[in-house]
Amino acid sequence: MGNTFGRALRITTWGESHGGGVGVVVDGCPPRLPITLEEIQLELNRRRPGQSDLTTPRQEEDQVQILSGLFEGQTLGTPISLMVWNKDARPEAYAPFKDTFRPSHADYTYEAKYGIRNWMGGGRASARETIGRVAAGALARKWLFLHYGVEIVAWVERVHDLRASVDADTVTREQVESNLVRCPDAHMAEKMAERIRWAKDQGDSVGGVVAVVARQVPAGLGEPVFDKLEAELAKGLMSLPAVKGVEIGSGFEGTLLTGSQHNDPFEMRDGQVRTLKNHSGGVQGGISNGENIVLRVAFKPTSTIFKAQQTVDKQGHEVVLEAQGRHDPCVLPRAVPIVEAMVALVLMDHALRQRAIAKE
Amino acid sequence: MGNTFGRALRITTWGESHGGGVGVVVDGCPPRLPITLEEIQLELNRRRPGQSDLTTPRQEEDQVQILSGLFEGQTLGTPISLMVWNKDARPEAYAPFKDTFRPSHADYTYEAKYGIRNWMGGGRASARETIGRVAAGALARKWLFLHYGVEIVAWVERVHDLRASVDADTVTREQVESNLVRCPDAHMAEKMAERIRWAKDQGDSVGGVVAVVARQVPAGLGEPVFDKLEAELAKGLMSLPAVKGVEIGSGFEGTLLTGSQHNDPFEMRDGQVRTLKNHSGGVQGGISNGENIVLRVAFKPTSTIFKAQQTVDKQGHEVVLEAQGRHDPCVLPRAVPIVEAMVALVLMDHALRQRAIAKE
Amino acid sequence: MGNTFGRALRITTWGESHGGGVGVVVDGCPPRLPITLEEIQLELNRRRPGQSDLTTPRQEEDQVQILSGLFEGQTLGTPISLMVWNKDARPEAYAPFKDTFRPSHADYTYEAKYGIRNWMGGGRASARETIGRVAAGALARKWLFLHYGVEIVAWVERVHDLRASVDADTVTREQVESNLVRCPDAHMAEKMAERIRWAKDQGDSVGGVVAVVARQVPAGLGEPVFDKLEAELAKGLMSLPAVKGVEIGSGFEGTLLTGSQHNDPFEMRDGQVRTLKNHSGGVQGGISNGENIVLRVAFKPTSTIFKAQQTVDKQGHEVVLEAQGRHDPCVLPRAVPIVEAMVALVLMDHALRQRAIAKE
Amino acid sequence: MGNTFGRALRITTWGESHGGGVGVVVDGCPPRLPITLEEIQLELNRRRPGQSDLTTPRQEEDQVQILSGLFEGQTLGTPISLMVWNKDARPEAYAPFKDTFRPSHADYTYEAKYGIRNWMGGGRASARETIGRVAAGALARKWLFLHYGVEIVAWVERVHDLRASVDADTVTREQVESNLVRCPDAHMAEKMAERIRWAKDQGDSVGGVVAVVARQVPAGLGEPVFDKLEAELAKGLMSLPAVKGVEIGSGFEGTLLTGSQHNDPFEMRDGQVRTLKNHSGGVQGGISNGENIVLRVAFKPTSTIFKAQQTVDKQGHEVVLEAQGRHDPCVLPRAVPIVEAMVALVLMDHALRQRAIAKE
Repeated sequence: MGNTFGRALRITTWGESHGGGVGVVVDGCPPRLPITLEEIQLELNRRRPGQSDLTTPRQEEDQVQILSGLFEGQTLGTPISLMVWNKDARPEAYAPFKDTFRPSHADYTYEAKYGIRNWMGGGRASARETIGRVAAGALARKWLFLHYGVEIVAWVERVHDLRASVDADTVTREQVESNLVRCPDAHMAEKMAERIRWAKDQGDSVGGVVAVVARQVPAGLGEPVFDKLEAELAKGLMSLPAVKGVEIGSGFEGTLLTGSQHNDPFEMRDGQVRTLKNHSGGVQGGISNGENIVLRVAFKPTSTIFKAQQTVDKQGHEVVLEAQGRHDPCVLPRAVPIVEAMVALVLMDHALRQRAIAKE
Repeated sequence: MGNTFGRALRITTWGESHGGGVGVVVDGCPPRLPITLEEIQLELNRRRPGQSDLTTPRQEEDQVQILSGLFEGQTLGTPISLMVWNKDARPEAYAPFKDTFRPSHADYTYEAKYGIRNWMGGGRASARETIGRVAAGALARKWLFLHYGVEIVAWVERVHDLRASVDADTVTREQVESNLVRCPDAHMAEKMAERIRWAKDQGDSVGGVVAVVARQVPAGLGEPVFDKLEAELAKGLMSLPAVKGVEIGSGFEGTLLTGSQHNDPFEMRDGQVRTLKNHSGGVQGGISNGENIVLRVAFKPTSTIFKAQQTVDKQGHEVVLEAQGRHDPCVLPRAVPIVEAMVALVLMDHALRQRAIAKE
Repeated sequence: MGNTFGRALRITTWGESHGGGVGVVVDGCPPRLPITLEEIQLELNRRRPGQSDLTTPRQEEDQVQILSGLFEGQTLGTPISLMVWNKDARPEAYAPFKDTFRPSHADYTYEAKYGIRNWMGGGRASARETIGRVAAGALARKWLFLHYGVEIVAWVERVHDLRASVDADTVTREQVESNLVRCPDAHMAEKMAERIRWAKDQGDSVGGVVAVVARQVPAGLGEPVFDKLEAELAKGLMSLPAVKGVEIGSGFEGTLLTGSQHNDPFEMRDGQVRTLKNHSGGVQGGISNGENIVLRVAFKPTSTIFKAQQTVDKQGHEVVLEAQGRHDPCVLPRAVPIVEAMVALVLMDHALRQRAIAKE
Repeated sequence: MGNTFGRALRITTWGESHGGGVGVVVDGCPPRLPITLEEIQLELNRRRPGQSDLTTPRQEEDQVQILSGLFEGQTLGTPISLMVWNKDARPEAYAPFKDTFRPSHADYTYEAKYGIRNWMGGGRASARETIGRVAAGALARKWLFLHYGVEIVAWVERVHDLRASVDADTVTREQVESNLVRCPDAHMAEKMAERIRWAKDQGDSVGGVVAVVARQVPAGLGEPVFDKLEAELAKGLMSLPAVKGVEIGSGFEGTLLTGSQHNDPFEMRDGQVRTLKNHSGGVQGGISNGENIVLRVAFKPTSTIFKAQQTVDKQGHEVVLEAQGRHDPCVLPRAVPIVEAMVALVLMDHALRQRAIAKE
């Protein structure tokens, strides 16, 4: 259960990290959206491993296949099935973990939940599962852009304690893609890259914060009460591997202000109701207000490390785990397209929901 | 839309702040759970306004009525309908806001979404909506305790910049309830109360952080991928009025650690697989691991203030809003039972889901 | 579980036949639909008991209350909560059934499922539950009429073996309401009334068929595959108490034709693609084609009878049940507004879904 | 939308008849169910075209691939992705229908709904979509048998006006599979086969009725109100291509009885509460009562015929369609495993739901 996300736009992902492959079924996408395989592949390329020395060297081309739902370059309104075959599956690399629970991985909890797990890789807990999200997100991103001109840009804001200063109102995808870290602050990006290599050299890992902005989101998206726009965004982002926190607008820092400091005054600008500042992060009462939607996502340092760790095995013995292998010392650069995809999926879902009840 | 929460345990809330009343329908509660009206009322009393000079003086007794689903002191397995009538509705107090959008409230966004709104109060965006959540949460809390011994305790951890130091492993409800602020650190609670009164005196407001722990949660709850336990908790908590951020376990701070510092080593304790520390916050790979589940929730300072504010009206004129009235200078003390309720609802939902597929 | 129906328009009903009351929460209704309490009450009056000597003499005024979701005569887009208090609850009349399972009622199955049941009446299995459906259906009917001119008319087509001949293309509500049986064939209606009285006199009951037509339904409603329009209609209608069969268009009789006899040729009429006949019943491939949607619903004879019946009690003893009391010898006349309501709810749900993805 | 079915057990099908392939994702299947590819293939073989001269000669091996969710012969509790590649796709055969709406097919309604359709085959309206249902049904069937000993047997009860007499209590799968028509009455099966060949020779088609029984279903499955067991079965079956009617137990015929004739008296048998007869069809108040669940499903004659038919084209011209080709003169023999699959899926869904709330 729990492999489907969204209400009006529903994606269902499937696949283990080391099995036939991984994929997604997208249901609810309106008909006649023009989309090419290349547009989807472009996003997957940003997510795939082996892009640089900063990420895992796992070799996966992650070539996407379209199995259904498109016809002559357009969506049919029927389910869009996309998949990627697993190529560089090396189950033997996982043999040491067959009976041993890797600390802070999902090995133990899967065993506790299911009484069985595919130990040849991370199973569903693997970041490989996010391939389906990114592929579906490419559709959502395209649709949002064509209908509303929505732009979604995520970037690495902080690695370990190295924080970049980035203007959410103006940052561009080109700036983000201009370096391997995906931090638009080029100077800080270099330091971050160094820090990541430092972690890698020690068989250790570092985490940080990815920020994301959605611009040109029309006012009126989001459902009051449980399906508030920020609640669904929080769910989508918190469901990504390694995420431990999500905040919108002023977030945790905003709690240090008083109400009179925090409130966003309204003004008329170009005939539109606008706010003078954006502590709200583009959402009020769970509904978008037309301002930029800004979120920050905390990624813990990756659990896969190559230092000796105390743990236990399936038989209940305490053991020391001293694995060697390849790992991703910092997931943040690859997390950027995934965060963008989740934001796109939530926004498109709510845009479709709003169309159903729109003012007549 | 969006007024239903949960999958196996589903609650649907209804009601505006100033209409007939507010209520909740709980579907999916197993039969034969013993529960009394008093047990539900007890939680509502912790949430209701007018408890002290620290909250809004709105007078509402919030007496709950059970309309269906119980019989001779036990649940029937059928929908449980609970409601509270609105008593102290003073629509005239809202007349100034009929055409004027209060900054950082949902007035403008409701208008943008629906083209209509009940201006006689906060409508669905009012904290009054949470009555249904708290009432339903009382059922969930009881069920979780009877079946697993689960204890859920929330407390005010920070008001403005005043931070209490509280041990999540041992804090008790009695400690929380020992003062009006609901901060178990009595010394800090006094300072917090002062700060809240200071804000009130100025017609201003303050925010802060509520922390919550769930103890004795069995391992195995939570669904991998989208319905990860932390994702659903994040959604539930982010859907509360005024919440701008949610974190679990090490949260945003944890991103300053390396993987080797952050990972939670496993050990055997009393024949159980346990972790030596709990940066994970009780959840790994989206599934509970048997440790304490610990979350922190950021509440912005309340939007209702009584200082002059720049805004616009429905007709597109810029105006200055200078309202007087009664307000809640700090929602945190009353938010404590609401946060507990949301955690209880998510945990019970996942416990029921787990029972469906449990190891056989 | 299972107390919610619909996807884009969701209704949740609650209430036992003998408890506080019964009600419904309607979520997803677009804002600014004008609707009055009287329009809702009108439909409830057609459903309520005690209308004539042909139905149960249970005295219930079934006065509906609007608890939320309306403001100044229009819907707000928020949940609409409607309820009716139970008045004529006579639990003592049910005392004989406290431990005895009435044949073909839900007494035994509720006990098997839940291990507890409210024996003071039919609980959720009571036809009283349909009050919420009819109230919600009044909203759907109004919305469908205002937006598309949709007309929904149901009627009693057969009582026992007495079959009326009615033209689905032209039958009007006025004709249906012109007699107590709700059969537009006045001559047959008299015979049917006689047959119902005959059953009543013997403490027995009769069943039959209710037919329903929806006219002016736009082409394009319904989702291929599982949520085909006829599939959702079948579910909605089969979920009514006492229903044992549903058919659309040619139904079971149509299976006696060959394909060349059964297929509905297309023609152009008034610039529209139309079919020359309507064996399809207005639906092809799960999607409305603009023709009249025609269904027939089989209602078994009511289970409540006053003849001696063999049964068993909770303790496993075989006993003879010889109850006396009041009963509804034929549910069909009162089922007419309920059938209409279910059709309206399904159609509005699908109309909203279609609006989300409509051709742009 | 509408490509997902079920709540606790959820299947999502995808794929057009002439595209990459067709498949299904099964979510919610409990872990550690032993299942082999062969068991799934076996059911697909019963469904596939080209089995005999009675069905379409389309050549499809329909070899299923397991892409995820199984490990060492057991389910993992994660999504099970199954697919079949399309092989014998002959889009050229569909060229005549590119702009012409085939009568009683979904060509026109898809165009009306989506403004686009994959004319190279029946798209999602093709019976090929049911491959995913049958594959998923094989899992459900296995699970139901292992846990409760449930047996599900469907058969062809009527072809055109040729009705077989079959005892639902004793009919076996072996009897059903003993002839090409899948009618356990061997004598009648021969006549039916003749009738089907007669239709085929004329380029015409015939319909009929498939009956199905589920034996050993435990009492207590099904949710009162909207998700009644018979309501969900009706939805599942009515969602199959060509189905125009569904009935349970006494069905339409039962409406000719009085209540005293129709009611099923209870007795004690082998220490169990049982009914003396089974007009209820195994379900009372929406919940299974432990008796055999018996349904009948009306399939209209296939729409694909090779006689001249009046229709219109996309441009609004009236045209005569005189197609030649291959077709399935009677879908009933191949519908048998599909009907069984749908029943299995609904029953397993409800069994899982019941486990969540089961008496404790």
